[in-house]
Amino acid sequence: MTALSVAEFLAGKASAGSDVTVKGWVRTKKDSKGGFSFINIHDGSCFGTLQVVADNKLPNYDSEVTKLTTGCSIEVFGTVVESQGKGQSFEMQAKELQVLGWVEDPATYPIQPKPHTMEFLRENAHLRPRTNIIGAMTRVRNSLAQAIHRFHHQRGFNWIHTPLITASDAEGAGELFRVSTLDLNNLPRTDKGDIDFSQDFFGKEAFLTVSGQLNVESYCLAMSKVYTFGPTFRAENSNTSRHLAEFWMVEPEVAFAKLPENADLAESMLKYICKAVLDERQDDMAFFAQRVDKTCISRLEQIVEQDFERMEYTDAVNILKNSGKSFEYPVEWGVDLQSEHERYLAEEHVGRPIILMNYPKDIKAFYMRLNDDEKTVAAMDVLAPGIGEIIGGSEREERLDVFDARLNAMDLNKDDYWWYRDLRRYGTVPHSGFGLGFERMVAYATGIKNIRDVIPFPRAPKSAEF
Amino acid sequence: MTALSVAEFLAGKASAGSDVTVKGWVRTKKDSKGGFSFINIHDGSCFGTLQVVADNKLPNYDSEVTKLTTGCSIEVFGTVVESQGKGQSFEMQAKELQVLGWVEDPATYPIQPKPHTMEFLRENAHLRPRTNIIGAMTRVRNSLAQAIHRFHHQRGFNWIHTPLITASDAEGAGELFRVSTLDLNNLPRTDKGDIDFSQDFFGKEAFLTVSGQLNVESYCLAMSKVYTFGPTFRAENSNTSRHLAEFWMVEPEVAFAKLPENADLAESMLKYICKAVLDERQDDMAFFAQRVDKTCISRLEQIVEQDFERMEYTDAVNILKNSGKSFEYPVEWGVDLQSEHERYLAEEHVGRPIILMNYPKDIKAFYMRLNDDEKTVAAMDVLAPGIGEIIGGSEREERLDVFDARLNAMDLNKDDYWWYRDLRRYGTVPHSGFGLGFERMVAYATGIKNIRDVIPFPRAPKSAEF
Repeated sequence: MTALSVAEFLAGKASAGSDVTVKGWVRTKKDSKGGFSFINIHDGSCFGTLQVVADNKLPNYDSEVTKLTTGCSIEVFGTVVESQGKGQSFEMQAKELQVLGWVEDPATYPIQPKPHTMEFLRENAHLRPRTNIIGAMTRVRNSLAQAIHRFHHQRGFNWIHTPLITASDAEGAGELFRVSTLDLNNLPRTDKGDIDFSQDFFGKEAFLTVSGQLNVESYCLAMSKVYTFGPTFRAENSNTSRHLAEFWMVEPEVAFAKLPENADLAESMLKYICKAVLDERQDDMAFFAQRVDKTCISRLEQIVEQDFERMEYTDAVNILKNSGKSFEYPVEWGVDLQSEHERYLAEEHVGRPIILMNYPKDIKAFYMRLNDDEKTVAAMDVLAPGIGEIIGGSEREERLDVFDARLNAMDLNKDDYWWYRDLRRYGTVPHSGFGLGFERMVAYATGIKNIRDVIPFPRAPKSAEF
Repeated sequence: MTALSVAEFLAGKASAGSDVTVKGWVRTKKDSKGGFSFINIHDGSCFGTLQVVADNKLPNYDSEVTKLTTGCSIEVFGTVVESQGKGQSFEMQAKELQVLGWVEDPATYPIQPKPHTMEFLRENAHLRPRTNIIGAMTRVRNSLAQAIHRFHHQRGFNWIHTPLITASDAEGAGELFRVSTLDLNNLPRTDKGDIDFSQDFFGKEAFLTVSGQLNVESYCLAMSKVYTFGPTFRAENSNTSRHLAEFWMVEPEVAFAKLPENADLAESMLKYICKAVLDERQDDMAFFAQRVDKTCISRLEQIVEQDFERMEYTDAVNILKNSGKSFEYPVEWGVDLQSEHERYLAEEHVGRPIILMNYPKDIKAFYMRLNDDEKTVAAMDVLAPGIGEIIGGSEREERLDVFDARLNAMDLNKDDYWWYRDLRRYGTVPHSGFGLGFERMVAYATGIKNIRDVIPFPRAPKSAEF
């Protein structure tokens, strides 16, 4: 007895006339007066549902089949039939239908076959994977994630699991979550009255990481091509549509690579992962284009098909100043660009993705490589139509003396960076990397606006987790 | 000018006589009296080093080449030459050699071309990726990780990123790390004098997760085939050779799957990932077999080639009792098996991996499915020669009434499981899953005994992170 997923069934893996078994959940059911029912079932394997025709020759037709409601789980054995309906390839004529799980009190079951607000679904996070939109998001998210690993593996990168709990706040990128096992009702104190972290789990203060980049440079300066793909944490603005307290980052880091190679890598990676989604998830992307954002497919196609423009930050500032547009935030050389500027450049000025390079050093991180002009650093941002910045990266300052001068100028303590400085004392090489916020990429691909709707478990009042 | 990695060079990607560039770090250098030097360089792309022959016709031979020491980074342009030495396929005759980075004070550079103790390397965690053993471990680790994703993706699984920060301690699997942004010097209190977690970041107490399993079941009961591969945390015994505070877990979860299918999936996955390592990392595995554990290759071959035995827990207890062996821990029906028992069964009794099934319910977790005998649950452990338990899994109790009775019997609070119970109220189906501790798998594959040496950044005094 062949068991098929809905995706396999619809793709014609079993030919018309053969008998197969399918298991899944009822999305909708319509009873006909002629003594038969149309039951549409899904199992998460694809966007589409399988239409099962069940008639009153089934021994449990009256007692069970007619009582099925949305969300019930069933196992159906039946014959593959070429579908008469448009848009459907195959359907099934049921020979046996077994109910695996009923829905308790169908009238109050939260997931009905009708549109729900995203707010409502966030509060039913444990059940929302059963909806069209979250199912489709999950498959697109998976497609992107798998493509990220495949891209790097095929090119000889090693995936490095950098530490999540860290005692160093060297990145300085944001507010930190403390990780501790101290008893809050009985905090140990030093003689001076300070909290005695030597009695905490790790013997010192510990936090959740904001980035794996500094750590992964250790591996880059030994293995040449490495990347992280793991969770990072920011203790700020958790409850907005654009920020998450917990999100996944992709951070490739390549030895012997200067800024142009870094830009090439970012472009290739974006092209590769967008192509994977377009190839693998046509069904889900058609849904997003129809229901969420008309442009989401054409945006991905543009990334795949068009060369990314390279542009100097300085040139971009001049273009913006001469654009005749009135921006909310005025532009001068030295300012960080806002989303309105980034989108003007990508959408209106060149009409495709741009990689902006060589930003003023004062608006960029301490570890970015100083250019010969001593005013700019070898930083880059990838700007995409419809979103603005999607990737940020740089060449890293690999020269110990220049790095130390920068730490000094920024009033940072050399001792905090002792091991990072060691990498520059022993066989230093030029190296570059970038970061892609994974959830931001999923939101971009699907057109879903609220970033809490592209993570598997949003934190919402009454939700499963919070 | 073609640039090749060491792996590409040694594999003959450029033919003898052609000119190429290679970049890497010096592992060893020998100067000959005849006016030339042999320099072995590595770049992390493979275990082997590339031998570069540099002679005194190079303009910087006396000023730089003869001064190279272990750890210096260089870029060499030269001609591919078929190697005369045994075990080497190709070497390079240098035409230009550029030093990219020197080693400051070579005499004190921690990574010398000699054996270091693992303890010493843990305290130099930022430099240890440059050693043979950590480089080899990193490549094997990557090979296993990539194979895990590939295995699931090819079979239609979706990778689900379950939450790392969680407000629920529903799993009950171990000691928790608290995650908080409260000011420890100024803790908010309720009227009753308790800590007021409503003022903490998430508005309630939050912890790091010990497992993604309960969460991922939400997706399993909607998408059918899902898995987690992410970090989990335990606040216990961090400083032993067998425990980590932070480690990665692989947790597949399959709807409509009973225990036998779960066992089959575990066997297929282990076979697939071990085969990937044997195919992709012959160089590194040869090193581990030679230097770390003679049996590590044959163990993996055994997993790939031999069918795993299936055995009932009850039968295993009888075999152990009748074995004539004197175990440190006596065996009776109802006890949890110890490593000595597991290894006897796998190594001596059947001489290959075993999947033990149907354990006494009292030694297993609350969510495992009760068998009809009402004494055992549909749990399984995969036991492998040389290590004992490598995978643990079960069918999940999908029947709400039986689940509730179990919660009651174990004095657990139903309300804490409201969303998990919802999954059983609405379209429940049989489902199964298992967990593989990723670091345990890497230790098994490489033969490395101390689990802190198979993670990228061990926590050790003076190490980069702690």
